[in-house]
Amino acid sequence: MKSIQIIKIGGNIIDNPEALDKFLQNFAMLDGLKVLVHGGGKIASEMSAKMGIPVNMVNGRRVTDEATIKIVTGVYAGQINKNIVADLQALDCNALGLTGADMNIIPAHKRVNAEIDYGFVGDFETDDINIDLLSKIIEMGVTPVFCALTHDQKGNMLNTNADTIASGLAVALSKSFETQLTYCFDKKGVLKDLNDDDSVIEHIDKKFYTTLKHSGTIHDGMIPKLDNSFNAIENGVSKIVIKHADCILENKGTTLTN
Amino acid sequence: MKSIQIIKIGGNIIDNPEALDKFLQNFAMLDGLKVLVHGGGKIASEMSAKMGIPVNMVNGRRVTDEATIKIVTGVYAGQINKNIVADLQALDCNALGLTGADMNIIPAHKRVNAEIDYGFVGDFETDDINIDLLSKIIEMGVTPVFCALTHDQKGNMLNTNADTIASGLAVALSKSFETQLTYCFDKKGVLKDLNDDDSVIEHIDKKFYTTLKHSGTIHDGMIPKLDNSFNAIENGVSKIVIKHADCILENKGTTLTN
Repeated sequence: MKSIQIIKIGGNIIDNPEALDKFLQNFAMLDGLKVLVHGGGKIASEMSAKMGIPVNMVNGRRVTDEATIKIVTGVYAGQINKNIVADLQALDCNALGLTGADMNIIPAHKRVNAEIDYGFVGDFETDDINIDLLSKIIEMGVTPVFCALTHDQKGNMLNTNADTIASGLAVALSKSFETQLTYCFDKKGVLKDLNDDDSVIEHIDKKFYTTLKHSGTIHDGMIPKLDNSFNAIENGVSKIVIKHADCILENKGTTLTN
Repeated sequence: MKSIQIIKIGGNIIDNPEALDKFLQNFAMLDGLKVLVHGGGKIASEMSAKMGIPVNMVNGRRVTDEATIKIVTGVYAGQINKNIVADLQALDCNALGLTGADMNIIPAHKRVNAEIDYGFVGDFETDDINIDLLSKIIEMGVTPVFCALTHDQKGNMLNTNADTIASGLAVALSKSFETQLTYCFDKKGVLKDLNDDDSVIEHIDKKFYTTLKHSGTIHDGMIPKLDNSFNAIENGVSKIVIKHADCILENKGTTLTN
């Protein structure tokens, strides 16, 4: 079984041209098969504000209305995604920009919630991800670059969490590849002490994770990411690494295994 | 040799949701291998105006500056392209949205002009189009949907004429497929009498085209499209049809052959 790396970068890198540039140079140099998943950053909100599109709140929660999903689709799948593709091509990495609508890779549905209609926000089942064509294209030496959009199979694009897309793709691809998922982060890894950037915990297995959660060592914001990660590991992903975006070529960060 | 159809639609359809919807329903029903190429329409200009991005003119010619290519990339490759992809997926057509940067399909360069720097506007050589991966993906049953963007291989997206992309792709694909190119139009075809919408000339070969040009039957605006078409035919395209966008399933319009 061939190996593949799925690397996810967040909005903090998208919003910082120098950090993005440095990351893409390192990403292009990574050996072997690879997939990039990127978040959205602030550009879509800034653009909506400039265009006078009001922020739509229902019950105190932000809703993705029709005007907003148009902007988001343009910014995520067009402006950000295709500029990353063009940058990677300039670095000799044969990138292909994708959403979950393309080749129906990630069929999703509008978020179901009894209290709030979130609008054009999508959730998906990992089992529904279609990796047959995607795997063949990856085997041809192409590097897919995913933005955080799926579709509802009724003609609507849906805004979807980039972490969830990354772990969903990693689990789905683990049927065809030995899969490593890397979450790039603004810290060096999972920290023992939030005030000490160098207190990286090098390795966490499931048992140790339970201990760390009970002792309160891992802070609240990190728990959903780690729960999600251990879930992906249980579903076929070989290894998950959480590290700083500057270090993707180095053997650093926190490694999660079963 | 398998057959393939390349169909190009212009901004007039993109700007008309009902016409686009009708076209996509017909396009999804078209049998066999197919590629869609779409123009841009007015959305990018309207968005630039709303965002207060000034129109940049040099020597009386419009220039695509950095702010404008960002908007254009978002609107063409994101908002328009991915909504077409989502619509086609809903119609059971396995669409994949592409720019010329994706998989380096259309490497281009900034337009060279001694008098004017057009900014982020791209021209390309048909011989440079990379169809190896594209052909394999088409053979898998995928329908590529191209917007009118290429890249300069230095990390910049470039605005490129959609007619030129359609004929370039048709010529390049004619190495692997028997290729038919269809230009969708707001008229029923090439007209003998501009004031009579039903005066469609059914068939024009190269000799008859020379006669029609000399007699002044074909009006100025049509000449570049037809010159370009006969050039594509000389370079491998089997047949070019010019017809109304409503009629892609019908045997109508003007057929051009050698």
